[in-house]
Amino acid sequence: MNYFSSNFKLGILGGGQLGKMLLFDTRKFDIQTYVLDPSEEAPCKIACNHFFQGDLMDFETVYNFGKQVDVLTFEIELVNLEALEKLENEGKKVYPSPKTLKLIQNKGIQKNFYLEHNIPTAPAKTFKNLKKLVVEIVESKLEMPFVWKCTEFGYDGNGVKIIRSLQDVENLPNVECIAEEMVPFKNELAVIVCRNPSGEIKTYPVVEMEFHPEANQVEYVICPARIDEKVAEKARAIALEVSKKFNHVGLLAVEMFQTQDDEILVNEVAPRPHNSGHYSIEASYTSQFENHLRAILDLPLGNTDSKVAGIMVNLSGAEGFSGDVIYENIETILGWNGVTPHIYGKKQTRPFRKMGHVTIVNEDINVARKIAEDVKNTIRVISK
Amino acid sequence: MNYFSSNFKLGILGGGQLGKMLLFDTRKFDIQTYVLDPSEEAPCKIACNHFFQGDLMDFETVYNFGKQVDVLTFEIELVNLEALEKLENEGKKVYPSPKTLKLIQNKGIQKNFYLEHNIPTAPAKTFKNLKKLVVEIVESKLEMPFVWKCTEFGYDGNGVKIIRSLQDVENLPNVECIAEEMVPFKNELAVIVCRNPSGEIKTYPVVEMEFHPEANQVEYVICPARIDEKVAEKARAIALEVSKKFNHVGLLAVEMFQTQDDEILVNEVAPRPHNSGHYSIEASYTSQFENHLRAILDLPLGNTDSKVAGIMVNLSGAEGFSGDVIYENIETILGWNGVTPHIYGKKQTRPFRKMGHVTIVNEDINVARKIAEDVKNTIRVISK
Repeated sequence: MNYFSSNFKLGILGGGQLGKMLLFDTRKFDIQTYVLDPSEEAPCKIACNHFFQGDLMDFETVYNFGKQVDVLTFEIELVNLEALEKLENEGKKVYPSPKTLKLIQNKGIQKNFYLEHNIPTAPAKTFKNLKKLVVEIVESKLEMPFVWKCTEFGYDGNGVKIIRSLQDVENLPNVECIAEEMVPFKNELAVIVCRNPSGEIKTYPVVEMEFHPEANQVEYVICPARIDEKVAEKARAIALEVSKKFNHVGLLAVEMFQTQDDEILVNEVAPRPHNSGHYSIEASYTSQFENHLRAILDLPLGNTDSKVAGIMVNLSGAEGFSGDVIYENIETILGWNGVTPHIYGKKQTRPFRKMGHVTIVNEDINVARKIAEDVKNTIRVISK
Repeated sequence: MNYFSSNFKLGILGGGQLGKMLLFDTRKFDIQTYVLDPSEEAPCKIACNHFFQGDLMDFETVYNFGKQVDVLTFEIELVNLEALEKLENEGKKVYPSPKTLKLIQNKGIQKNFYLEHNIPTAPAKTFKNLKKLVVEIVESKLEMPFVWKCTEFGYDGNGVKIIRSLQDVENLPNVECIAEEMVPFKNELAVIVCRNPSGEIKTYPVVEMEFHPEANQVEYVICPARIDEKVAEKARAIALEVSKKFNHVGLLAVEMFQTQDDEILVNEVAPRPHNSGHYSIEASYTSQFENHLRAILDLPLGNTDSKVAGIMVNLSGAEGFSGDVIYENIETILGWNGVTPHIYGKKQTRPFRKMGHVTIVNEDINVARKIAEDVKNTIRVISK
């Protein structure tokens, strides 16, 4: 297959920031792209060859979009699965496969997949709805505290809640959910795995999510994780095992917990470029986006090693600001060593909206960490 | 000035590969771009916000294009200078300034600039036309061999010829030209300097052009140059001196010769991103394109140091092939460590047409050099 400056067509479902960063690599390789997104102001609207506005959850829209391309991928999991299945059944190349997506889209199914395949994970139980869960609490069959997760349509911490008392359950939606045992952990880690249809597999180094000591929010994604070499090896091996079990094509971001006694438990996976891999644009020999592209086109995978240490800070909309965005003090941080802001191209900010990220690279991870803290304390996403 | 996700408009004259690579950074920062290029199939057509088709040498076209943007830059020197001057006189920010461009566009004026400012360069004489030059040869006032260069509209080796006998002059155009003393040199070097309107200046490391031993063509651009540290320091100091004399804004690529006795002579400059700086996308903390953008927007300049050694190989159309392009064996080179092809997006190949480049990065410059040779011997730009 000739992909480069040819009539080959790559379709991408979703036109957000992940798609936007993927388009850097399709343009670098001059691969023709078709993008579908519901928003007329999607970050992918420029830099793709053909943009289509439409509902990603609508069967007809996704099916008709997919019919016209040669390979179809997605940058968001919330897409119409039935359309992907029909396209794949008709012989269209859909990567990752809807079979993989089906195992991941629903957190109950995903959790059972780990349990069935002996992949270390926190014990959990699935409930058809909230009422059934409440019954078990009342009957003392379910011990508190535990982590409640809705099985579908949750993202970025939405749809996840720690339940310490019956009161905490009160305002939750009455949907299918899981109750997961709370595991005290030292670190939240992630490993991105890429795999192409020929079966070539590579893992990126283990990254560490550093949390704010009080706010319990991820502040920094740090590569490499500042953990024991043996723990890192174990995390990479488990991520590889998960990847093999899913038999996916493309990227698989595997989020994990490092427990107090250095066990690794798989939390959840995402079958696409992932926030925890954004550092790779500046720090790695091959970025996660380029490797996703290489993988779904069955090209050889690129080197996943790092040139330098990398730290990522998310740029989210500050509380109390809504409207036309201003990146306060961005000029200041641009003056610092190894600092690269990525602005996703959303015109309007809202509290907590993901507006961009900043990567800090340095030969010395401790220097990078210091600069990252300065970045975090300096730039602010506000409105006019 | 708020550039990021705002209504600010950056105009770029020229929509070729240099512009295309600049657009990676305008998109990363979400800066709105307007591009003017004569070709409907310009590589910049996607990934800019607004594309205009038109003649870059036409006064009205360039003037009207420039009127609608806030800052105007160019990725090619062959643009209508009078239009730029009028725009600048009317208060438009044009970077680099037409004053700089005027000193560079004509090689006779550029040469005199070096001579007047005591910048080391090979001695040369300007002639109004070829006939006047021939007269001096006949009258034995001009010693052969020498290097003939037309003063305007030459690029990439066009408009340059070594004259060893009267016969060599025969088919040259009867235009303004210079005759430059032939200096035997060990190495051809280049240093890219960036400077912003506030006067912040940074130089990239010295790169070396390695020539094919027989064909006398540049085969590899190597960063850092494998030369004595003192010579490198001298080259960087001279490039800085040239930059200060031009007082330019944006990038200035300074091409130099290292003579047999380690003198540095300035050959010529380009006031824009340059082929000799393409390695910087993968190898440097801040690419030349990002630094050009930072410079013309008067933002702080990024770190010009390298993370790893970088080597660039140009991808030119192979002799004997014209038509729809095929990058033969590109899949093979993608399997090698640290190899990144950049495909410019020209659908049609022609012999010697610049179609792309490949960057090879590695911690060890000798390993990179070996892989670069393999790349050169493996990938071929042919047609269907």
